Amino acid sequence: MSDSTRFAGQILGKFVAGSAWADIAAPLRHEAKRSILNHLGCALGVAQDPAVTTALSVMRAFSGLPAATVVGQGARLDPMSAAFVNAIASNLLDYDDTHLRTVIHPAAPLAPALLALAEQRGFSGAAVLHAFLLGGEVECRIGNAVSPGHYARGWHITSTCGAFGAAAGCARLLGLDAERTWHAIGIAASQAAGLVENLPTAAKNIGVGNAARHGMLAALFAEQGYKAAPAAIEGPLGWARATGDACDIGAITEGLGSDWEIGRNTYKPYPAGIVFHAVIDACLELRDSIGVPPEAIARVTVAGDALLLARGDRVVRNERDARVSIHHSAALGFIRGRAGVADFEMPAVTDPALAAFRAKVVALLDDSLPRGAATVTVQLADGREARTTVTAPRGSIERPMSDAELEAKFRDNAAIGGFVGRADRQIEAIWELEAAAEIGPLMALLA
Amino acid sequence: MSDSTRFAGQILGKFVAGSAWADIAAPLRHEAKRSILNHLGCALGVAQDPAVTTALSVMRAFSGLPAATVVGQGARLDPMSAAFVNAIASNLLDYDDTHLRTVIHPAAPLAPALLALAEQRGFSGAAVLHAFLLGGEVECRIGNAVSPGHYARGWHITSTCGAFGAAAGCARLLGLDAERTWHAIGIAASQAAGLVENLPTAAKNIGVGNAARHGMLAALFAEQGYKAAPAAIEGPLGWARATGDACDIGAITEGLGSDWEIGRNTYKPYPAGIVFHAVIDACLELRDSIGVPPEAIARVTVAGDALLLARGDRVVRNERDARVSIHHSAALGFIRGRAGVADFEMPAVTDPALAAFRAKVVALLDDSLPRGAATVTVQLADGREARTTVTAPRGSIERPMSDAELEAKFRDNAAIGGFVGRADRQIEAIWELEAAAEIGPLMALLA
Repeated sequence: MSDSTRFAGQILGKFVAGSAWADIAAPLRHEAKRSILNHLGCALGVAQDPAVTTALSVMRAFSGLPAATVVGQGARLDPMSAAFVNAIASNLLDYDDTHLRTVIHPAAPLAPALLALAEQRGFSGAAVLHAFLLGGEVECRIGNAVSPGHYARGWHITSTCGAFGAAAGCARLLGLDAERTWHAIGIAASQAAGLVENLPTAAKNIGVGNAARHGMLAALFAEQGYKAAPAAIEGPLGWARATGDACDIGAITEGLGSDWEIGRNTYKPYPAGIVFHAVIDACLELRDSIGVPPEAIARVTVAGDALLLARGDRVVRNERDARVSIHHSAALGFIRGRAGVADFEMPAVTDPALAAFRAKVVALLDDSLPRGAATVTVQLADGREARTTVTAPRGSIERPMSDAELEAKFRDNAAIGGFVGRADRQIEAIWELEAAAEIGPLMALLA
Repeated sequence: MSDSTRFAGQILGKFVAGSAWADIAAPLRHEAKRSILNHLGCALGVAQDPAVTTALSVMRAFSGLPAATVVGQGARLDPMSAAFVNAIASNLLDYDDTHLRTVIHPAAPLAPALLALAEQRGFSGAAVLHAFLLGGEVECRIGNAVSPGHYARGWHITSTCGAFGAAAGCARLLGLDAERTWHAIGIAASQAAGLVENLPTAAKNIGVGNAARHGMLAALFAEQGYKAAPAAIEGPLGWARATGDACDIGAITEGLGSDWEIGRNTYKPYPAGIVFHAVIDACLELRDSIGVPPEAIARVTVAGDALLLARGDRVVRNERDARVSIHHSAALGFIRGRAGVADFEMPAVTDPALAAFRAKVVALLDDSLPRGAATVTVQLADGREARTTVTAPRGSIERPMSDAELEAKFRDNAAIGGFVGRADRQIEAIWELEAAAEIGPLMALLA
């Protein structure tokens, strides 16, 4: 960087505007497709959820020309409104992707803005994938710079950092130069909002939807000449200090373009809190290895670190409880041998077989286990015992979901949303995005 | 309040939903009209400013049915988009109203949302005035609770607290019950954003426009059943803590409904920084009392506190400098005998007579003077001297703008915006708002 490049937004603007698709390595290109596959499946899965249909009906009254598809709704809105609703859908169950270091869900605020803008303006699939990687990189790197204090203080980091990512991605898609991209990122700083306190409520959705919409708005205004302060992120009265944190600017820019944070995106195999994934995996593994019916099991002991116990040792009364329950996770592993979306809904919560099994599960603190790990011990009625420890569950960086697993997750989601027939064609269109001259055909399949 | 009323948003929700127009005292009703008169004049004055026309052109592509007037533009947009542009216009030059304790500009984020929604749905003038007072009260009281730390940390308090005010006002206009109004305020907490760092740039406008739009969005979603966390404002991971401040909940609710903060709204007579108003007033007074031509003045000494000197002792190169210059303020007082919008624009900046007079002005620290006061001493070429001190300038709480002065300011703004012919009818329609069955006729006059 030259001496004149001093501000975080300025360095990011140069990076985003100057990046060449030809320089993006094949694995990273493929990761972008995996992220979008996972993202769109999650949105399809909740297409009939009232939170999503309500968002659609409110925005419909305030939408301009319907040029962008609302996923799974048979409806189109203007690109900003479509991005708002699609972002809400994708993140609704927190079943989407996770950048583990920051707990950002990178795709939800970003991909809907890019897909909507590209659908309206006829941009190519490769342009969308490239903008996704660049926007995601901006989003996760700014997140790194303010983590973990930002989330701990109450900021829903997916919503706040998502606005930066969507701004940078949309700026790239619109072909803005480095300076206008810098301004777009700075305008996003004046729009970043969303609170952890509101996460258990529908107000969460507004924050996530806004991030997508605001990012697009920032890029559109920067395109028309609106400017922001040079140090909108790190200045003395800028975003980082206002939100309560000193910003580690170095984390934003160090290794930019060579060490890709968005390449560390992960995907959830189960629609449960991420710390419960090791519990589910361990129980699935034991179910296979011991090969006895559930009645033969007398007791299951689940050991984990303090976070697992604090979050998961609870009575299960509703869907929200089920998604963060040690007992329900273990019961699904042994009784159903799976843990899909339907397995955390009310029929599963009230299923007598699951309820009876939950009562056999005991949670135990084991401080020697790392975060995200679990040891499960099964005591059979005949006195035998079996045990396994999972430290890297499916979907972790060490054991990523395979393409086939992501496809299966997509099909599962599509079926839940009521879209069985077209899943194969949708999956195929996503894998072929890089060669697509326009993304309209993919979006038509998702309508 | 009953024991079950424990949360700030809950208390505000009860207050807003339960207020009766018949219980609002006449002076407060009149203050609402004065605020709206001042607000609409400011928006008319900048109708031709590129920042406003750019905002209109960007939003036009994303607007639903054009049911709300964009002030001074001959254009209509959907209510959310119209509110966005009108909020930007009203606050563009910071010539609008000021709640002095918080430095909030109460009307900009609030009135546009109310007027747009009322125009679309046919609500009455009295309903708008009532919602304005209630929304403004919520806005200023939440501002009190986080001041002065909030602004000092970098939050543009007009944008952040404006979202709460617009949410509460729109909730009232929509007839939401106490609980839904509480949720609307909580949803606003997840949308409040805007940075002081960005104030010298067009990014400021986005924050102010969003506040209006977000408040309306929050109310519309709350109407449809979206909920927020009970303690979205003051909770451990809520808005106040996330933004870096402990929230003084007492300041939000103490005296609510009897001691009206929005009744302390003030209006600027001059489009200059508020600390320069005493300088202008003192010079106007001396000009009248000494009655000599400018050439007879050898030297003008302006004494004030540290803030006045820190902000105002500067070389004037452009319009922004002129609005925060001791020297330019004094020159306008003596040379032009007025300080309207045009007197701070480039022709005035480069006017040789003003430039020559600015060179005669000396700034002097006088720590004994209170904030906002100024002592001006004139030395004539013949050796005589005259002096006056102004501690309560025009437009301050102690010396409020009269109705006639607000009308004159409105006419001045209307003329600058290019709308001379209709100002009298517009003013009349605003004074008669309380009896208007619908506000459509007023908005048509403002188109």
